[in-house]
Amino acid sequence: MHRDTALLAVDWGSSSLRGARLDGAGRVLEQRVFTQGVLSVAPGQFAGVFESAFGDWRRASGAPCLISGMAGSQQGWQETAYCACPAGFDELAAQLSPLAQEPGCAPIALVPGLRCDGDCTLAGLDRVPDVMRGEEVQIFGAMQITGLRDGLFVLPGTHSKWARVAAARVTGFKTYMSGEFFALLRQHSMLARSLDANAEPDSEAFARGVQRSAQGAGLLHDAFGVRTLSLFGHMDAAALQSYLSGLLIGAEISAQSLRSGAEVILIGAPALTTLYAQALALHGVGCVRLDEQATWAGLFALSRGLGTATP
Amino acid sequence: MHRDTALLAVDWGSSSLRGARLDGAGRVLEQRVFTQGVLSVAPGQFAGVFESAFGDWRRASGAPCLISGMAGSQQGWQETAYCACPAGFDELAAQLSPLAQEPGCAPIALVPGLRCDGDCTLAGLDRVPDVMRGEEVQIFGAMQITGLRDGLFVLPGTHSKWARVAAARVTGFKTYMSGEFFALLRQHSMLARSLDANAEPDSEAFARGVQRSAQGAGLLHDAFGVRTLSLFGHMDAAALQSYLSGLLIGAEISAQSLRSGAEVILIGAPALTTLYAQALALHGVGCVRLDEQATWAGLFALSRGLGTATP
Repeated sequence: MHRDTALLAVDWGSSSLRGARLDGAGRVLEQRVFTQGVLSVAPGQFAGVFESAFGDWRRASGAPCLISGMAGSQQGWQETAYCACPAGFDELAAQLSPLAQEPGCAPIALVPGLRCDGDCTLAGLDRVPDVMRGEEVQIFGAMQITGLRDGLFVLPGTHSKWARVAAARVTGFKTYMSGEFFALLRQHSMLARSLDANAEPDSEAFARGVQRSAQGAGLLHDAFGVRTLSLFGHMDAAALQSYLSGLLIGAEISAQSLRSGAEVILIGAPALTTLYAQALALHGVGCVRLDEQATWAGLFALSRGLGTATP
Repeated sequence: MHRDTALLAVDWGSSSLRGARLDGAGRVLEQRVFTQGVLSVAPGQFAGVFESAFGDWRRASGAPCLISGMAGSQQGWQETAYCACPAGFDELAAQLSPLAQEPGCAPIALVPGLRCDGDCTLAGLDRVPDVMRGEEVQIFGAMQITGLRDGLFVLPGTHSKWARVAAARVTGFKTYMSGEFFALLRQHSMLARSLDANAEPDSEAFARGVQRSAQGAGLLHDAFGVRTLSLFGHMDAAALQSYLSGLLIGAEISAQSLRSGAEVILIGAPALTTLYAQALALHGVGCVRLDEQATWAGLFALSRGLGTATP
């Protein structure tokens, strides 16, 4: 029996399923990671996948469960709304979306996503909406952990998010497809044959890529340089993959208006935040780094409105 | 017999093989197009593919043959050098690379490519080489046709080239992977399911993409807008493919420092130069448009140094 479990916290993203048992103080008792991301689960199969991943935890603990991420998308378990920005913790907590459960079972609920309607400084110009699912929980979790109520929160990944927070509310954000572009170029482009996909990370080549992108010629041009550096033997295949990574992360950072000396809150897997921290430092920008602890802290804080099993 | 044929002009690119019989005044007598681009020909098979494509023309005319494009690359028929920029017509003509032929056969030669060593205005910063193969012939051909000796020559394609010409010499150029990025995003990315790949071109959606990219948020962000515009039903799948095309061509144009009222020389397939002309017009830039005639004119001009069949 897991009587010490107060919450099953679950982050069900596009490409992975992660869960943790948290105690009454929000401390992590146990974690699990599975490869069954939302994109790999067929419609109608979500309850079954959830049961095999966490059913034993549910039965042993009787604790409620809160799920964030793409599980609440059109392709997910049950579609949830997007909270419109500016959005604070209370708006998010008020829109948790319970799943229908059999009587006597502890509640399971999904966290809504966030949306914003493009850059409000571009009045009169074409505005395109933006969305996140899962990162909003990490942002509010990071606020819980750090006590920060204002700042630029950066969540690198397949689709990186840069979110502006003021007075503890997310006022707007932008998505960058850097991770997906990197995968596309590495796997499917003409550049693939110039790269050694199994190479160890090369910090110096990565820095050259970041610095190159800062020269402002644009990603469409800079990417071709991976081919020519290879063609003339100016950089070897082992280093070129890190160079390409630097070009992409550098392009993402160069698109921001960051002043030297600024500091951002960087949230994500350590392998990725290490790269972003290095690239930000090359732009003179510092960071506070957090990992998945931000997810668990966010879900724990949001769960306070959930009931427990009705006896 | 093709006694009127003075030159077999061949453009052998990555993905296609095109040839033309030209008369003594450079006029096109006949054209052929094949799908056997350099990337689809195995090492050692180039002579055989060439023979099946143009062998009858060779035997009937006894005319020399000049080949431009990727046939001169590492992956091609016979590797040729790159002329270093700044490069004029005479440097290119002096470096034609003859193929070994049996005695009595008319000569076959390959045109070298061009290389430059990055933006010379960026002294002290990281410089990355750039290359072209085939486009240099089109540029010199365009000069022949238009009489222009100065200007910005734009050759859209899988890897678009923007070349600066001064006093009839190519002083430098930059490659943009716009066409390849478009193909990658359309075929392999998360955006693919939002697009109708069989849709007719949508001029208004294309213009929205060009204008969106001009707002300067960067391609990594703007591309994600294809997904959110679809998600909220702001643009339908038929229009979104043109919108994405506008984002990419717009990003390529925004990367230049073009002043409104400028004019460029645009060389390429009419379907593509039509799009670029529209996007340039949205930036206030005009253009002179040329198609494959530039290739034949360039090869004809370069062929004057070639002999004919030795009797």
